[in-house]
Amino acid sequence: MAKQSKIVIIGGGACGPKTAARARRLDASAQITMLQDEELISYAACGLPYYISNVVKSHNALLVRDAAAFKKISNVDVLTATRVDRIDRSTHSIDVTSLAEGRHYSIDYDKLVIATGASPVIPPIKGIDLKGVHVLKRVPDADEIKVLINESASKKAVVVGAGLIGVEMVEALTARGLKVTVVEALSKVLPGILDEEISDLLADHITSKGATLKLGQKVVKFKGDNNRVSHVITDKETLEADVVIFAIGVRPNSKLAKEAGLEIGIFGDIAVNDYLQTSDPDIFAGGDCVANVSIITGKKMFVPMGSSANKHGHVIAANITGGRERFPGIVGTACVKVFAFNTGRVGLGETQALEAGFEVVTALISNHDKPTYFPGSKDVIIKLIVDQKTHRILGGQGTGPGEVIKRIDVLATCITAGMTIDTLANLDLAYAPPYNTSLDVLHHTANLVRNKLEGRTASISSDAAKKKIADGADFVLLDVRSEWESDNTWLEAPQVHLLPQPQLQDEMDKLDKNAETVVFCLQGNRAYQSSCTLKGAGFTDVKFVEGSLICWGKDGVCGEPVL
Amino acid sequence: MAKQSKIVIIGGGACGPKTAARARRLDASAQITMLQDEELISYAACGLPYYISNVVKSHNALLVRDAAAFKKISNVDVLTATRVDRIDRSTHSIDVTSLAEGRHYSIDYDKLVIATGASPVIPPIKGIDLKGVHVLKRVPDADEIKVLINESASKKAVVVGAGLIGVEMVEALTARGLKVTVVEALSKVLPGILDEEISDLLADHITSKGATLKLGQKVVKFKGDNNRVSHVITDKETLEADVVIFAIGVRPNSKLAKEAGLEIGIFGDIAVNDYLQTSDPDIFAGGDCVANVSIITGKKMFVPMGSSANKHGHVIAANITGGRERFPGIVGTACVKVFAFNTGRVGLGETQALEAGFEVVTALISNHDKPTYFPGSKDVIIKLIVDQKTHRILGGQGTGPGEVIKRIDVLATCITAGMTIDTLANLDLAYAPPYNTSLDVLHHTANLVRNKLEGRTASISSDAAKKKIADGADFVLLDVRSEWESDNTWLEAPQVHLLPQPQLQDEMDKLDKNAETVVFCLQGNRAYQSSCTLKGAGFTDVKFVEGSLICWGKDGVCGEPVL
Repeated sequence: MAKQSKIVIIGGGACGPKTAARARRLDASAQITMLQDEELISYAACGLPYYISNVVKSHNALLVRDAAAFKKISNVDVLTATRVDRIDRSTHSIDVTSLAEGRHYSIDYDKLVIATGASPVIPPIKGIDLKGVHVLKRVPDADEIKVLINESASKKAVVVGAGLIGVEMVEALTARGLKVTVVEALSKVLPGILDEEISDLLADHITSKGATLKLGQKVVKFKGDNNRVSHVITDKETLEADVVIFAIGVRPNSKLAKEAGLEIGIFGDIAVNDYLQTSDPDIFAGGDCVANVSIITGKKMFVPMGSSANKHGHVIAANITGGRERFPGIVGTACVKVFAFNTGRVGLGETQALEAGFEVVTALISNHDKPTYFPGSKDVIIKLIVDQKTHRILGGQGTGPGEVIKRIDVLATCITAGMTIDTLANLDLAYAPPYNTSLDVLHHTANLVRNKLEGRTASISSDAAKKKIADGADFVLLDVRSEWESDNTWLEAPQVHLLPQPQLQDEMDKLDKNAETVVFCLQGNRAYQSSCTLKGAGFTDVKFVEGSLICWGKDGVCGEPVL
Repeated sequence: MAKQSKIVIIGGGACGPKTAARARRLDASAQITMLQDEELISYAACGLPYYISNVVKSHNALLVRDAAAFKKISNVDVLTATRVDRIDRSTHSIDVTSLAEGRHYSIDYDKLVIATGASPVIPPIKGIDLKGVHVLKRVPDADEIKVLINESASKKAVVVGAGLIGVEMVEALTARGLKVTVVEALSKVLPGILDEEISDLLADHITSKGATLKLGQKVVKFKGDNNRVSHVITDKETLEADVVIFAIGVRPNSKLAKEAGLEIGIFGDIAVNDYLQTSDPDIFAGGDCVANVSIITGKKMFVPMGSSANKHGHVIAANITGGRERFPGIVGTACVKVFAFNTGRVGLGETQALEAGFEVVTALISNHDKPTYFPGSKDVIIKLIVDQKTHRILGGQGTGPGEVIKRIDVLATCITAGMTIDTLANLDLAYAPPYNTSLDVLHHTANLVRNKLEGRTASISSDAAKKKIADGADFVLLDVRSEWESDNTWLEAPQVHLLPQPQLQDEMDKLDKNAETVVFCLQGNRAYQSSCTLKGAGFTDVKFVEGSLICWGKDGVCGEPVL
């Protein structure tokens, strides 16, 4: 009989338990030990904002499996409240401390898995230790935040950081009746995740739900009252709040690995190869403490996600039990629900694509997620980022009240496969009125890119159009919506000229063929069609506004909101 | 100046208008004429069942654009109520009849587009002309069916044919208060579309909503009363009904093309090449009157879909205005909503894959569409069909109350790209609790295929398990659910043995290691895990039931329904 293999796993979040459970299925005889520095293991950390908002009623619902069940079902020894102090690679052992008993001892391993996750970045800002300032990572954090909310006297909260957790917490705190202000040092929400157009739409939505955004502001100090936070002081103003969620990002927990002399990556991540093996062949690492290879660029990126952590666990389990599986990397997919908007992204953003050396062409389309005649039809706004040379899809982003995430998943699949927009334009997506329009918004977006590449159409972003207005430029901003629509919602700018699309052919003589003409409508489709009509009639400089009023934001838009 | 091109388009459904509108955008000077043999053009025929059910309140909502608007916006001459009698290829002209005036005349073309669609198959069954027996194709059909429903005395309807339109009409008629019976000549619902496992689940759902399925029955006669249908007589029984929807399938409208000597395909379709060009280079065809190339097999398949028709129009418009675009074909995607179940399919079914010469391995997984702790989490059941040799995904199907169609769209993208299950298993799909579980059901399904291929697990379908029970086979049917679950819903079979998963390790000695052991639970996951535990402990013949009770159907299941 083969020697019983000793597998030791540090970390009981997502990657650790996945590794342990599958390792047991693949190797019935191994001795498997999993260590966790807190009481709970294997809980759904991603669900914590929904527990705070009371969408999830009990934190028990978030617990996937406890230590006893893990022993019973998978025969894994789970040591909770046990801290790992040191990895001794020379003796193949780890030094641990039982936090309850204060006892120190060692555990031998044949194969070691580091799945220590990531921790919130907490800079030494004055007052950050005040009661009421909290990060969100673990179940006890959520329980403590719920107490803070209940005790809040001012009913005012500040979320520091408009990343994924930050914006989820805006929804959660607002749902609990707090007036929320978000302070973000960068100039947009979900910076590094969304391009400006999509981010701006989300920002408008967040604002419309009563939260206040303070973008481009840095927190410099927290002020307290009776040792509880009372004010957040930024480089620009003072904000009242007795609940503060600090969520400016996370960093890989790689201290143990570093001290053991393992190679560390540029993100402070534990460096691993495609087999999730560290620089020590007997030590593997996965989950939020590692970076992932981008399938697009081949470079490492730090995108900590529970989904990747689970896949890592699956791969590592094979590789520590005699198998050889490869983790192919990621395409940087992320999604988040904030109030009524579904937002997602995948691949490279426009700036990232330019930085990676691609010649980029983009398209932004606003469309319905199912036919307008079908109840529940809602808007989705999709931006596609494409390599001009090869037509390969590099990235995609979307937001809106409609079904955005289905489109993100399709794009994630396209990008993984190296698909071009030409293939996407004819992709055989499922169509029936309850689910889709006969041509999906992705088809329209791919076709717009193709039309732009072929020089069949010229377009302008709403931001560029706004800038022209602000500059007082001399051009015609042609509104081709109906009179009824423009009576309800209109652009306040001297360049605006209304000529509804059905009258365009008959009345275009009223327009100057040689004037710069920028066409808009509600979503952009009629504007696109009309720009073709004008171009065909000999207008020399005609463009349409991509996404038109839907993507315009609030600047200069009067009357009824369009989204 | 170039000669003004004469473009003539026969058909005003989906492909025709799409062709006309885009041709105009690509060629401002062409003379474009579109002919339609009915009054309405460019309506959403796919929405008709929802107009009948009153989900869509007015048929006006289904009208995309009328002839006048088409002229105004796209400068296309639309001749409605105009029948095309003949295509004269030698003179490049068509003979037409104005149905209102009875006037005959000819129209010249440089490029001709045939977009004549498909028509319901109506065999010469006795009594098929009785009032109350109706097909559904056009808006007037829907209006007439609504009158039939309102006038119905028996409030009993029969739908003949359990294809896509048939099952949509079951929902629509049931919603209108009718008691619906479906008569289908083949042995399952959505035959030719779904594999048996998925079809059976949908059939159970339809039945649970009050409709009656008569599968494997052929209609032989309709009996009337005062010239209105009163009974449907099948080869097995007589069914009362004064509303009958006849929906056994459609055939391409290729008569004009055939009479003009154009090449006709094996489905009676107008044969076209990848550029949607017929055997006459000046004549193009698209929409439901053509067949499509399967991207998987390279062979033609007849899958009439509004989505493909629109894409055809886009491609044809380029090719009749001096461009050269290719339509790459389809992967046979289809989806349908029936009551609370979302159902879809893509690629090859299991039998189709075997017939195409593939060595096939399949996996069936039932899972939640988002975490169980998140409100609105629902079941999805996915079947994957994979080429054993190359690991390439050949097909996928799914049903259930959860978000199935997103998964179908991802699979459509995978299949188009020729992706393997190994890539699918690590696909970076969007994850956040409102949208998905951290590992998607597609990941689990891909992993199950891989585990089967590697010999890591053995499984059995619920049908095979049922057959073993029916045969009185000597085996252990091990239920690893909790006592509480098995008290609520249980299998009535002498082979059943309850041993909840958490007790399995301690009490497996009570089981015979050499007995054939078939493990089941609710969804299949615990059964899979437990089968690994038993295998690891030396059990010699252990399998689990894929999809377990969720996919079991009703046979022998007692107590609370599981889906």
